[in-house]
Amino acid sequence: MSPRRETYARKLDLTRGCVEIGHGGGGRTMAQLIEELFLAAFDNDWLRAQDDCARLTVPTGRLVMATDSHVVSPLFFPGGDIGCLSVHGTLNDVAMAGARPLYLAAGFILEEGFPLADLQRIVTSMARAAQAAEVPIVTGDTKVVERGKGDGVFITTTGVGVIPAGVDISANRAQPGDAVLLSGSLGEHGMAVLAQRENLSFDTSIESDTAALHGLVAAMVAAVPDIHCLRDPTRGGLSSALNEIARQSAVGMRLREAAIPVKEPVRALCEFLGLDPLYVANEGKLLAICPVEVAETLLAAMRAHPLGREAALIGEVVADPHGFVEMETVFGGHRLVDWLSGEQLPRIC
Amino acid sequence: MSPRRETYARKLDLTRGCVEIGHGGGGRTMAQLIEELFLAAFDNDWLRAQDDCARLTVPTGRLVMATDSHVVSPLFFPGGDIGCLSVHGTLNDVAMAGARPLYLAAGFILEEGFPLADLQRIVTSMARAAQAAEVPIVTGDTKVVERGKGDGVFITTTGVGVIPAGVDISANRAQPGDAVLLSGSLGEHGMAVLAQRENLSFDTSIESDTAALHGLVAAMVAAVPDIHCLRDPTRGGLSSALNEIARQSAVGMRLREAAIPVKEPVRALCEFLGLDPLYVANEGKLLAICPVEVAETLLAAMRAHPLGREAALIGEVVADPHGFVEMETVFGGHRLVDWLSGEQLPRIC
Repeated sequence: MSPRRETYARKLDLTRGCVEIGHGGGGRTMAQLIEELFLAAFDNDWLRAQDDCARLTVPTGRLVMATDSHVVSPLFFPGGDIGCLSVHGTLNDVAMAGARPLYLAAGFILEEGFPLADLQRIVTSMARAAQAAEVPIVTGDTKVVERGKGDGVFITTTGVGVIPAGVDISANRAQPGDAVLLSGSLGEHGMAVLAQRENLSFDTSIESDTAALHGLVAAMVAAVPDIHCLRDPTRGGLSSALNEIARQSAVGMRLREAAIPVKEPVRALCEFLGLDPLYVANEGKLLAICPVEVAETLLAAMRAHPLGREAALIGEVVADPHGFVEMETVFGGHRLVDWLSGEQLPRIC
Repeated sequence: MSPRRETYARKLDLTRGCVEIGHGGGGRTMAQLIEELFLAAFDNDWLRAQDDCARLTVPTGRLVMATDSHVVSPLFFPGGDIGCLSVHGTLNDVAMAGARPLYLAAGFILEEGFPLADLQRIVTSMARAAQAAEVPIVTGDTKVVERGKGDGVFITTTGVGVIPAGVDISANRAQPGDAVLLSGSLGEHGMAVLAQRENLSFDTSIESDTAALHGLVAAMVAAVPDIHCLRDPTRGGLSSALNEIARQSAVGMRLREAAIPVKEPVRALCEFLGLDPLYVANEGKLLAICPVEVAETLLAAMRAHPLGREAALIGEVVADPHGFVEMETVFGGHRLVDWLSGEQLPRIC
């Protein structure tokens, strides 16, 4: 006997309706929002069970868990929105352990008065991203805060996955002599969001690179199981990602600026705004560190994947007790690539 | 070689300092917040690795995953705060599948200007709750939104756990004839938060019942492996929990009001405010449904546990194609216990 569907006085008005406090109340109004909006988009057996948790089958292996709260502003930007971003961001954190993502959970914090049509657009984008990644959203939660106590929609996603046997990827495994590879050009996500936010008058044509990287990672791990480190340079950009690895592995890095791909519109907008692409957020790029002997093999595997076509060898790991990241500039000089201090672009993801 | 610790110009001012936009920026300022506040409180090997995910060992078994966003207002209330609540809430959702919770992830959305001293108090409370529950917080994320775009602190926690062999607990397993058990008295969490929020002038002496229920669940499952349903009656209270199960299992329920424990101060405050304790949130109570033949065994196991001392048999499951929850009142009449429609007490968890 299949569970009785609740009958509601009228359907949610997904065209003109707004989020109401009652949508977070745990009663019938919330049940209706979940059924007509979330379940309709994410439809699967786990969610249909409507328990407060999901029962999952997991193959034997080491489990990986990652969580990311998404507060990007604006919610919609060229190339994406908070919905697909919240799927990609967490899948990528799971993938950076070399793992295959299996399941996602999603927690929504909605502001009273937020248009249901926008919420549906976001949820549909999440559903599409999850489907394309073949990772179902199996459980979730919805809360509503009063007008002025939130900012439209915040989405926290959590992912679990399993690490294939023989893979041991961690930020503390970089070794002097290792090669540093980057999967593609820098700065597109940050510049796309910023251009949208600031209503920059000239058409920048820059789109966010937001993408799920686990397919690329699977191809890389298959080609070179002994990848030492993987990291997606999101908030804080390439500089922060490299400094984190340098710190965790107690090594230094030497980069060649000329080898780092940055697309012309991003370079131009960064110059215009006085920003450095090395510090700008990416949402569909990864950094890989591997033994130099297998660097060409790994680079070839990356370039054979649609999301790694512009992959490049951008530098090497060096012994350095200070853990400095240095760069040979295009003019032949050297400069220190320090961490981002504070915040360059707030609410970029 | 252990990873280099970053040295910062000065330590975080945990007495007078406030959350700044830069604390969410992905750079050095964020690293300092994580090290001096989150890592200091949650200290474990997973977090110390400072990857964007955690690598976990999981025993063979069916995995359970649950997520909960916490937006309770006020952040501190008699008997608890958003910190311990965010640990208990998610542990309980995992436990309601009969599972043993293993790991927690935590995503923080902080409002610019929020006092670091309050954040530390919250984080310390989370750490204490996680430690008491023996479930480590293994990974996390921190975002900062501008002043006026959030409300102090929102915390989304996600838990994973494993279901012991032979246990099959789900909201769709209630069967006519089953017994309905409640682990203790109703309404304390909701009334404690409300009294604090509204600054009620008389001393209510009501404290939140917030507690981790997985120990109680383990004792219950050990005594009666064939429990059919478990549910913690949080938002929406007992009425919503029972209506959800009735709907999922396509059955009705008959309750006896006289058997439902409600403490005197809660009853008095509910009467004063015109609220019904059946609709008020709980954070440390559970509802269990089991075959009537084992109800006494289960009740005894509940009463033997500190969190189930006042457990009671409150009703039974009946065949009812309409899925109604009915109650025999203390005066001998009958009334329908419908879902909460809309929101009785916003932001109760």
